[in-house]
Amino acid sequence: MPGIFWLVPVAGVIGVVFALLMARDVLRRPAGTPKMEEIGGMIFEGAKAFLRRQYVTIALLSLVVAAVIGILVATLSSSDELARLQITAFGIGWRTSIAFIVGAALSAVSGFIGMYVAVKANVRCAAASQKSLQEAVKVALRGGSVPGFLIVALSLLGVMVIFFAYGGGSHPSIAPHLIVGFAFGASFVALFAQLGGGIYTKAADMGADLVGKVEAGIPEDDPRNAAVIADLVGDNVGDCAGRGADLFESTVAENIGAMILGITIYALTQNITWILFPLVIRAAGIIASMIGILSVRIRGDENPMNALNRGYYLAIGLSIIGMILIVPHMLNNWWLVGAGIVGIATSVVVVYITQYYTEGRFRPVKSIVEASKTGPATNIVTGIAVGFETTLATAITIAVALLLSYWLGTKTGLPGGGGFGTAVATMGMLMTCPYILSEDTFGPITDNANGINTMAGIGKEIRRITDRLDAVGNTTKALTKGYAMVSAGLAAFLLFQAYLNRVSLLRFGVEGKYDIVNIARVEVFVGALIAVMLVFLFSSWAIRAVSATASKIIQEVRRQFREFPGILTGETRPDYARAVDITTRAALRGMVAPGLLPVLVPVVIGVLFKNLSADYDAAMVVASLLMVGTIAGILMASFMNNGGGAWDNAKKWIEDGQLKDETGKVLGKGSFAHAAAVVGDTVGDPFKDTAGPSLHVLVKLLATITLVMCPLFI
Amino acid sequence: MPGIFWLVPVAGVIGVVFALLMARDVLRRPAGTPKMEEIGGMIFEGAKAFLRRQYVTIALLSLVVAAVIGILVATLSSSDELARLQITAFGIGWRTSIAFIVGAALSAVSGFIGMYVAVKANVRCAAASQKSLQEAVKVALRGGSVPGFLIVALSLLGVMVIFFAYGGGSHPSIAPHLIVGFAFGASFVALFAQLGGGIYTKAADMGADLVGKVEAGIPEDDPRNAAVIADLVGDNVGDCAGRGADLFESTVAENIGAMILGITIYALTQNITWILFPLVIRAAGIIASMIGILSVRIRGDENPMNALNRGYYLAIGLSIIGMILIVPHMLNNWWLVGAGIVGIATSVVVVYITQYYTEGRFRPVKSIVEASKTGPATNIVTGIAVGFETTLATAITIAVALLLSYWLGTKTGLPGGGGFGTAVATMGMLMTCPYILSEDTFGPITDNANGINTMAGIGKEIRRITDRLDAVGNTTKALTKGYAMVSAGLAAFLLFQAYLNRVSLLRFGVEGKYDIVNIARVEVFVGALIAVMLVFLFSSWAIRAVSATASKIIQEVRRQFREFPGILTGETRPDYARAVDITTRAALRGMVAPGLLPVLVPVVIGVLFKNLSADYDAAMVVASLLMVGTIAGILMASFMNNGGGAWDNAKKWIEDGQLKDETGKVLGKGSFAHAAAVVGDTVGDPFKDTAGPSLHVLVKLLATITLVMCPLFI
Repeated sequence: MPGIFWLVPVAGVIGVVFALLMARDVLRRPAGTPKMEEIGGMIFEGAKAFLRRQYVTIALLSLVVAAVIGILVATLSSSDELARLQITAFGIGWRTSIAFIVGAALSAVSGFIGMYVAVKANVRCAAASQKSLQEAVKVALRGGSVPGFLIVALSLLGVMVIFFAYGGGSHPSIAPHLIVGFAFGASFVALFAQLGGGIYTKAADMGADLVGKVEAGIPEDDPRNAAVIADLVGDNVGDCAGRGADLFESTVAENIGAMILGITIYALTQNITWILFPLVIRAAGIIASMIGILSVRIRGDENPMNALNRGYYLAIGLSIIGMILIVPHMLNNWWLVGAGIVGIATSVVVVYITQYYTEGRFRPVKSIVEASKTGPATNIVTGIAVGFETTLATAITIAVALLLSYWLGTKTGLPGGGGFGTAVATMGMLMTCPYILSEDTFGPITDNANGINTMAGIGKEIRRITDRLDAVGNTTKALTKGYAMVSAGLAAFLLFQAYLNRVSLLRFGVEGKYDIVNIARVEVFVGALIAVMLVFLFSSWAIRAVSATASKIIQEVRRQFREFPGILTGETRPDYARAVDITTRAALRGMVAPGLLPVLVPVVIGVLFKNLSADYDAAMVVASLLMVGTIAGILMASFMNNGGGAWDNAKKWIEDGQLKDETGKVLGKGSFAHAAAVVGDTVGDPFKDTAGPSLHVLVKLLATITLVMCPLFI
Repeated sequence: MPGIFWLVPVAGVIGVVFALLMARDVLRRPAGTPKMEEIGGMIFEGAKAFLRRQYVTIALLSLVVAAVIGILVATLSSSDELARLQITAFGIGWRTSIAFIVGAALSAVSGFIGMYVAVKANVRCAAASQKSLQEAVKVALRGGSVPGFLIVALSLLGVMVIFFAYGGGSHPSIAPHLIVGFAFGASFVALFAQLGGGIYTKAADMGADLVGKVEAGIPEDDPRNAAVIADLVGDNVGDCAGRGADLFESTVAENIGAMILGITIYALTQNITWILFPLVIRAAGIIASMIGILSVRIRGDENPMNALNRGYYLAIGLSIIGMILIVPHMLNNWWLVGAGIVGIATSVVVVYITQYYTEGRFRPVKSIVEASKTGPATNIVTGIAVGFETTLATAITIAVALLLSYWLGTKTGLPGGGGFGTAVATMGMLMTCPYILSEDTFGPITDNANGINTMAGIGKEIRRITDRLDAVGNTTKALTKGYAMVSAGLAAFLLFQAYLNRVSLLRFGVEGKYDIVNIARVEVFVGALIAVMLVFLFSSWAIRAVSATASKIIQEVRRQFREFPGILTGETRPDYARAVDITTRAALRGMVAPGLLPVLVPVVIGVLFKNLSADYDAAMVVASLLMVGTIAGILMASFMNNGGGAWDNAKKWIEDGQLKDETGKVLGKGSFAHAAAVVGDTVGDPFKDTAGPSLHVLVKLLATITLVMCPLFI
């Protein structure tokens, strides 16, 4: 065991303690006026009710899957493989099931914590905004850092504990294979959490807007709208709980994938360092991010985004130093330091790209703003064109990072060194994950704080503070999606390698012998065809679930307006709880079909091709499904996330009064152009907050499910 | 030379004669009232002006490309290869250049003929509609069959002549390699024709609608709208000229690709039949389609679509008989008959799928109609969901057809038999190409006839006839796109095979030794990533060119309304010619960037990776770009064509009065739902008529350019 490994448990525990201290600090703060406390309470109740029901559904699905994969792995593992792993069929079966359940449970806990703290923090952020901008930022950022650090620390400690519990100390080359179920469990829950939450949040948003702003002509977040609480709940269950589960599974899947790649080098060197290295780097990242968060201070009346960026660059700098200190010490290799720095640099590039495509001051959003003058159709067409175009920057960033880090890896001369290079780059990129995640949760907290201020009838002066923070939150949310997307792209290559290694082990008893995925074979080409189709179909179903749920909400709010005319005059309080309940049920129903799609398709395709003809190589078909599906998934997510963000900010830009007609007259709120921009924003919502983020999870779920189900295809 | 080969020149000549007879018949008919004749004349002038300018641009680009590829092929061909081909460097250079120019010129001629006859036929169809529905159908279908048969016959005769001119009679295994330039020339022109025409037609359509219907509140095809002639011109230059060039290049590329695959079997059997077989099947298809067209009769007042379908099924039946007679006679093989029938059956399946997704009576369009009730945003979201979902049917159809025909091909036991099986399936599918193409041109002819009737102020009774025909034309246009898309998918595999064979020849001196495209290699994976990105980026630029051009038209019409107030009162005639001119220039400017993209990217990527590192296999990177780009291109086209068609018909369904609110009131023209559906239709226009059809060409251009440029990457 390398001495530096002490950093893993220590950083893990420090991460947890830091998160708890931050949580205590936030919870101690005043929750504002009674009115604000009441609204905060309603949001909390709604979010809790949704998560409870969602988790019951997910738990049932998870138990079924855990049983099925346990039985499959136990019955399908060949005697050769069992002998190699020094385990019985029953032993491998229950270990896989338990790992799956633990991964699933921790992912669910991560999501719940994200939601809990965010909901408590938003009302306190609203209260703090009455004092000053600085205080409001402090509450939002500290609130955001609770899930940010807890999630990463939990994933680190979880992987460490299960690795050693499954005999990693004595058989380090065996344990990583036994714990892939952990990553699959995490992905499985993350997909449903992100989907269910994403459907909920955007259906509530669309429904509230369409029936409130468009039909009844009342403003956003108006308390007369029965769907308004559901809308605020949505931010917490979608952005916080969903994204929390998403990033939990990202760190888990990439840790385990990198450990599996390390096995090849361990086999040669008998040095366990190669397997444990990913955990140490992650631990260093927690420390770097923590210092970054603590350093954030707003100077005077500056844009809070500047302060957040300074903190981020500090975290980046510390991560580079960590890389330089740890890699040569543990691996005695400078080429891999280079690979790590490539990964870190990539995360900075992503920030710039996302800002370019989604901020109003640059050409892409401006073109959408301009197109709004001729109505919704040109706004939509231009937005789609902008969204499609973002795939250029995304693809080139990923391509360059992959080629560079792979090349640096091969320079080490180690077997599988190229793949390990991409793994180190991924680790480098994910070092600042706790920081990014804290910024991400900052978004819904400030969004909610703004909504609470509006509903509580707080004066304009103070609302300007939360309005400003809300805009910053939109940017940080967009950044996280870019980050999650590109890191998924980088990680993809490492996860494929892990899959191919596993196939090689199962088929030939050694790693590295199965390294060809030949799409010139007809069945493998068909696998690639199905992969791209899967991405389109998943997006279709996810989007459709949003509009189906939204139409349920619209009907309910219409009914309330019709049956209780006092609501519109402000005399009767709308039935918020019923709207929340209807949204909950419809969203949960909507998440099942798209959620099961990426779980079932790879398994069905693999088993089908295995039985269709002896000429077919089913494992290769699945590999092609995984690889090409990853490519299509990431680029589709790029389109959806950035396109949606661009539409959103085009609307904001017009609301800011930045669009003028030929005579110089401002075309602001209420103009024809603004109405067109609202349509674009509404179309972009399910793209950027439902289908897009779910696609990141889909990509990683494809990787973890194929890793676990591998024996089925051979 | 097999005896049955006489069928090729005979069917080619019969096809040309048939087309000329049909043209004479149409041109002899009366051109209607002087008013109608005047409008028809303006459309003809506009279309001619556009094509003249477009062809000048394309000709200049083509000459440059012809020179460049001639020089590249001459300088890069290795001495080994030249010896094998029994040719000098200069000899291969000029042959490739000339083949390119001939292919490009024939493609341009095909497009021009399509436009010419359609423009002449539309005014005669309008005149015939004053007599009866039957007469109008007759004129439209006969008009459509002129380009339909001329194009296929020209492509057949062209390939035959150049094959023998380049020594195919004495060296049958060499000539196909020398004539790939012919296919590249055809694709090159087709891409620009389809793009330029597609941008023109949809920009004019969008511009005319937005400034007329939305802003000025005047009906469609109203003579007061200066853009209305440009709109009618657009149908002819986009749908007729563009699609004509597209299908010309399809038949050429697939003929040549199949001939190259035949070489492998020829090398073994020394039987030239394997190389000439594709031409014979194509010849039989011309005869089968001709009998089908001649059989079309409308019974009483039936839906004209039924009559067209009866003719189609006759053509299908005759094609199957042709397959059964020719394949065993020429190839002495019944397995390949099966492969051919798979291809023919696939084309029938496509018809059903397209109808399901784009006709108002089925669930998908109904869901868009329903979503229009809550406004444009839900209409758009639902339409995108429907469009994405269509990839499921497209992918499964292609997958089943590929797997089945490949399997049947391997059963022959011949070397490369599987690939040849997919080639035979493709040929089977394309047998009815002349019929489908005739139906396709039927669309714009009836559309224009309807527009001419409206502009000439013809009574409602007669316009109901052309209105009905217009709806049939929408369906036939959608069918052609589905057909072109799936045939591109089937052909893809055969074109890859041809590429790999060519690489094998260049690298190892024999065919069939280079048969692995391993996407688990990092650079090959990057190739696949760039491929999917290329499809997104191309679509983005194509769509954007439409909105840029449309905004130019809108400004012009607005200017005319402003400066000549007499236009709106009907006292002043708008300046149609100026609107046509502005559209022409903007569309041609817009086609250059997206058109050059798929030409340059494969070449740049191939050359870049060849020089980046000796570890990289540049030919394999290009292969992966080609294969994954084909998959992404076809599925994206499926989304765009079917989604656009669904939006269009959702609007029509509402206009037909099929949507009712909760109280049973019809929500027809002028309702909130109708306005929402108009937005969807406008968004769908550049999808289904610009980007979508151009993607078919892109897919085949990738194949032909990589075939020709192959020596660059090795």
